[in-house]
Amino acid sequence: MEKLSAIQCCGGEQLRFKHRSHSLNCDMTFSVFLPQDAQKTPVPVIYWLSGLTCTDENFVTKAGAQRFAAEYGVAIVAPDTSPRGDDVPDDPNGAWDFGKGAGFYVNATEQPWAAHYRMYDYVVTELPALISQHLPVDTARQSIFGHSMGGHGALTIALKNPGKYRSVSAFSPICSPLNCPWGEKALGQYLGDDRSAWEDYDTCTLLGKAQSHLPVLVDQGSADSFLVEQLKTDRLLRASTEHQYPMTIRMQAGYDHSYFFIASFIDEHIAFHANHLLWS
Amino acid sequence: MEKLSAIQCCGGEQLRFKHRSHSLNCDMTFSVFLPQDAQKTPVPVIYWLSGLTCTDENFVTKAGAQRFAAEYGVAIVAPDTSPRGDDVPDDPNGAWDFGKGAGFYVNATEQPWAAHYRMYDYVVTELPALISQHLPVDTARQSIFGHSMGGHGALTIALKNPGKYRSVSAFSPICSPLNCPWGEKALGQYLGDDRSAWEDYDTCTLLGKAQSHLPVLVDQGSADSFLVEQLKTDRLLRASTEHQYPMTIRMQAGYDHSYFFIASFIDEHIAFHANHLLWS
Repeated sequence: MEKLSAIQCCGGEQLRFKHRSHSLNCDMTFSVFLPQDAQKTPVPVIYWLSGLTCTDENFVTKAGAQRFAAEYGVAIVAPDTSPRGDDVPDDPNGAWDFGKGAGFYVNATEQPWAAHYRMYDYVVTELPALISQHLPVDTARQSIFGHSMGGHGALTIALKNPGKYRSVSAFSPICSPLNCPWGEKALGQYLGDDRSAWEDYDTCTLLGKAQSHLPVLVDQGSADSFLVEQLKTDRLLRASTEHQYPMTIRMQAGYDHSYFFIASFIDEHIAFHANHLLWS
Repeated sequence: MEKLSAIQCCGGEQLRFKHRSHSLNCDMTFSVFLPQDAQKTPVPVIYWLSGLTCTDENFVTKAGAQRFAAEYGVAIVAPDTSPRGDDVPDDPNGAWDFGKGAGFYVNATEQPWAAHYRMYDYVVTELPALISQHLPVDTARQSIFGHSMGGHGALTIALKNPGKYRSVSAFSPICSPLNCPWGEKALGQYLGDDRSAWEDYDTCTLLGKAQSHLPVLVDQGSADSFLVEQLKTDRLLRASTEHQYPMTIRMQAGYDHSYFFIASFIDEHIAFHANHLLWS
């Protein structure tokens, strides 16, 4: 693991690392914010999963999260959104909603994607093991959150691994990739035509299979141009009710899909996770 | 004045406008954050001046200022850093520290720069008149701050116009363009060889001419790679002492020149200005 940069921020350190990923079969870059507390003792960790087209850097530069991570004494790990590099196949037309920058946090089973597009394993298994080995974080106390495609990633990963995470939250998540164009395009290619395989990565479906309940917080802007066609928060609300999976879903009036929305409520999301990481 | 975008953020609005500037003789773009309070009554305004290579957008996306502007109920206006457009002359070698993105907040007197490079007049006179006419801001209550080249801009503009601003602050300012390579290059070309003309835009010189004292706050990172050669905070400290101009200069251990430094202390700068805009 090679340290690319270390910049002091809010009394802690904003770090960037490069490493060879065995899950993804390529070199990967990720960012970590370590609060000052980490100099004394391992700190809990929250994973941030970004949306379509993002790298590990969007959240780090735009969300204003460091201030609150420092305040609560938690680390934030931000991975990239897909495998990278010249050896990794990409959408032949350079689409922004499939291939590089659009890994959808699944393990691809179809060719030519299966050799690299395994972001699920990377986030759930490889990255926690890597940071646990090299950084002062306590991976027994983990939470996860994300935005849009990354909101989908955070929710599905937490629902499939309730013992690994204490809480999950999402901004503007894709609530049911089985039922939106982004999901159709990505899961159809990564997982193939059998839609039953997609259910394993569909938040609304997974809610019906949950054996235990995690604390869940979802924020969605009412002025989000992707809300009706792609995100479909109404489906999440119905599934939560139908399957009696309690969660807090907040429709935030007037907010759009941008990082200005995330920056407006990032304090409340970090406080929500800190509440479960530090005191429960 | 054309509205390019309006995005809800922290209960207020992040706006972007385009207009024809008579000072700069070109089209200009600037950003404004209006807190929710501005829907009811005109609010005080703080101008943010950015550094070399920036546009109006760097501060808006990276500083995390909206949260605190919303909390205190103040607007923040972020202009661009130079005239723009195909008709505006630029450094013949495309340098990043002169020409476009590097207006240095002066009124150029030398050709071919004098027709456009008049950022001093734009910030001090044209922009306040424009926003006062079109937006719910109270330009009788103004403060100003900035970063690096923009810290130099904020300090010199406030020192030359103490009646127009209630307070001034700077992150990592160029403290004496008379005495650093960035200043030599820019002022030499914008203002010509007669260095006495530069003194009118040199913070350390202006401190000796001040007839009244504004509240001044300066933050400087100790790990800033530009500190010794370009910024020279030691000169500001000496000039402040010599001329008995009181100010708070804080050397912040371990911080560099980046927006991670700005984001770490933006709350304290906005609180500093709000204290003078709202309650004095």
